[in-house]
Amino acid sequence: MDGLELILLYDYYGNLLTPRQRECFELRYDQDLSLGEIGEELGISRQGVHDNLSRTEALLRNMEQKTGCVRRDQNCRNAARTILTAARQLRDHSDTAVSRLAEQIIAAAQGLEE
Amino acid sequence: MDGLELILLYDYYGNLLTPRQRECFELRYDQDLSLGEIGEELGISRQGVHDNLSRTEALLRNMEQKTGCVRRDQNCRNAARTILTAARQLRDHSDTAVSRLAEQIIAAAQGLEE
Repeated sequence: MDGLELILLYDYYGNLLTPRQRECFELRYDQDLSLGEIGEELGISRQGVHDNLSRTEALLRNMEQKTGCVRRDQNCRNAARTILTAARQLRDHSDTAVSRLAEQIIAAAQGLEE
Repeated sequence: MDGLELILLYDYYGNLLTPRQRECFELRYDQDLSLGEIGEELGISRQGVHDNLSRTEALLRNMEQKTGCVRRDQNCRNAARTILTAARQLRDHSDTAVSRLAEQIIAAAQGLEE
């Protein structure tokens, strides 16, 4: 699994990990330290860091596989972008009924892009 | 927490529970058995059933508090409904540019209602 995908999963599920798992993960993926450097920082072996990170990766993957939260949320954002692109073309329509409805659509879709 | 709210959380996070937690939960909330009846079914005490269900409730609440998946997904569905209501009023507009864009919006929003 690549780092970006892991970081995305971490954004969703990181709060379900233990403090030590979070610490290891952030030193690795936010601060880009090597396994050896993380081990020194935390006073554990390089192998201990490796095992901790492997366990975290497996947990994050499992949570996504079991709940699909990230996939659903990404679908929602993608749909919101499609909707906004279309609705913005209707916003300045000369028929005010059209522009008013377009504004309603835009307001609802913007809440999903956050 | 009321039963409907718990069942909603269970739909999202149930797969992260243990088989025994799932079994207890489903006997209670799908099949509506009493704690005593569940205890007989599973060969554990009434108190054991109570503790298992309490733990499950706490886990489900914690997962939602930590990830917000259900809340986000409900927001997405609510927005999709608002968008569909507005876009359907544009679908039969005499300006074909409007009706075409309305169809695009409807197609994108329908995928979010599932």
